[in-house]
Amino acid sequence: MKDNFSDRLLAEIVRKRSTLVAGIDPRPENLPESLSMREFCNETIDAICDIACAIKIQVAFFEQLGPAGWHHLSAVIKHAREKNLIVIVDAKRGDIGSTSEAYASGWFAEQTCTGEDNVIRADALTIAPYLGKDNFDAFDPHIAKGAGAFVLCRTSNKSAVDIQDLEVGREKVWEKVAALVSAWGDPHIGQNGLSSVGAVVGATYPEEGARVREIAPSTWFLVPGIGAQGGKAEDARNFTRDDGTGAIFNVSRGIMYAYLTKEYAHLGEKHFAEAARAAAKSYRRMLWEACRMKV
Amino acid sequence: MKDNFSDRLLAEIVRKRSTLVAGIDPRPENLPESLSMREFCNETIDAICDIACAIKIQVAFFEQLGPAGWHHLSAVIKHAREKNLIVIVDAKRGDIGSTSEAYASGWFAEQTCTGEDNVIRADALTIAPYLGKDNFDAFDPHIAKGAGAFVLCRTSNKSAVDIQDLEVGREKVWEKVAALVSAWGDPHIGQNGLSSVGAVVGATYPEEGARVREIAPSTWFLVPGIGAQGGKAEDARNFTRDDGTGAIFNVSRGIMYAYLTKEYAHLGEKHFAEAARAAAKSYRRMLWEACRMKV
Repeated sequence: MKDNFSDRLLAEIVRKRSTLVAGIDPRPENLPESLSMREFCNETIDAICDIACAIKIQVAFFEQLGPAGWHHLSAVIKHAREKNLIVIVDAKRGDIGSTSEAYASGWFAEQTCTGEDNVIRADALTIAPYLGKDNFDAFDPHIAKGAGAFVLCRTSNKSAVDIQDLEVGREKVWEKVAALVSAWGDPHIGQNGLSSVGAVVGATYPEEGARVREIAPSTWFLVPGIGAQGGKAEDARNFTRDDGTGAIFNVSRGIMYAYLTKEYAHLGEKHFAEAARAAAKSYRRMLWEACRMKV
Repeated sequence: MKDNFSDRLLAEIVRKRSTLVAGIDPRPENLPESLSMREFCNETIDAICDIACAIKIQVAFFEQLGPAGWHHLSAVIKHAREKNLIVIVDAKRGDIGSTSEAYASGWFAEQTCTGEDNVIRADALTIAPYLGKDNFDAFDPHIAKGAGAFVLCRTSNKSAVDIQDLEVGREKVWEKVAALVSAWGDPHIGQNGLSSVGAVVGATYPEEGARVREIAPSTWFLVPGIGAQGGKAEDARNFTRDDGTGAIFNVSRGIMYAYLTKEYAHLGEKHFAEAARAAAKSYRRMLWEACRMKV
């Protein structure tokens, strides 16, 4: 993990012609029959590893199972790294001082963990903004060494408005957060002009996406909410820069659980991986066309 | 975990004459010689279990160690429960929809985890507010069954101002959050008039504490930042209700690492537990006197 995260990410996007992030959300109550959580994740990863520019792993579904879940998580991350996938860990962590440093070193440091089973190193982590720069500061030295971060800015859920839409003068809280994230990212801009400090900007608010882009022109956006949550691939351009770069789009249920959708149900549960691959290809194409990237 | 969390908490406070929460923050790089993380935590717990009304376990220091850390965490929580301690897990989790539900069921459900080592059930969890009510809603049914939550409102760190102090009309963001937390807690008010949905309000901002109390009269405050961070026990009354109830005060470094302070250094590292017990007694007395509780 030596190169700037932003540059590594863009290189993957160009190489795979893909702005698609495949979300790994193994809901324990919803695994295909006879598969363990680990098998379900790893077979999905095998099916999409040449199609998605990165994966986003949702920690909550592993954490839910206690220590056993963390063993699964470790194994899944190890598998993804063997497939040379960029691993974004969606943990939305946020704390202060030495506590944030513990989170940062747990997810990013090379030598925190001992033993093969304890490799849980992420390429990038989602982090929460409410505690301010103190939290970010703990991640900063790791970002300087090649890690990435995506700070929650405008989330994809309905009650995002509760706090994010509060009006601060003529702006909203999420616009203030966008400006903070942009400033925090300034020291980490790669050769491609984009920073390794990104923002989470929900696909369900494409107009707000365009506004965040104005405020934070050098910021990568991780855009969740495409598919099941109602965000549309054709709005992708609202989130990108003029050259079509600067945004990656996460699809979770639409890929991992594609076998449950009308379009792929005929494949059957046994062929969930085939369904995931077909769905990922379809999302990749739609997103790539919508981004109209000049690279 | 059947009774209302708020009522259980007040009963413990009255029984132990203590509003002190002992913070369990096992920094892996800072353990007393020859002790494992688990031993350090459990011996500290043994030393303070009759003095603190609850413990607050900081997950980050365990998560930092990957799966091995979660085994330690599970063992420490199990030990604390055997000592009949109320366990507040400081994880500051926040997500949306089914992802929040995964966090909630992981920390609160009785039957999520299998096998003795996987018991990581908390009595209460700290949660993050930025995603709004969607996140809280996932915890709500567990709170109805006896769990507790503490939502970040006004944190104890310096850069809390970055977002929490933004001015929304004539109020600040943290005042808006206080009002939201108060409203979310209304359905969960116990026989004592306080809700099982609490707020985190940093001891380092006693004036803001008094303001949050005005906005949220029926809300328990979990007040971190006493001691090492600069918050003072004598300000405790700023956070309580008129009858002195409604606030609990966390001390982490000042207890667990008391053996490193001037006052207790003479005991030596070997007697860290003795130092922790003496420090806890001292904090309990200071806080109890400052709260002037009428119960």
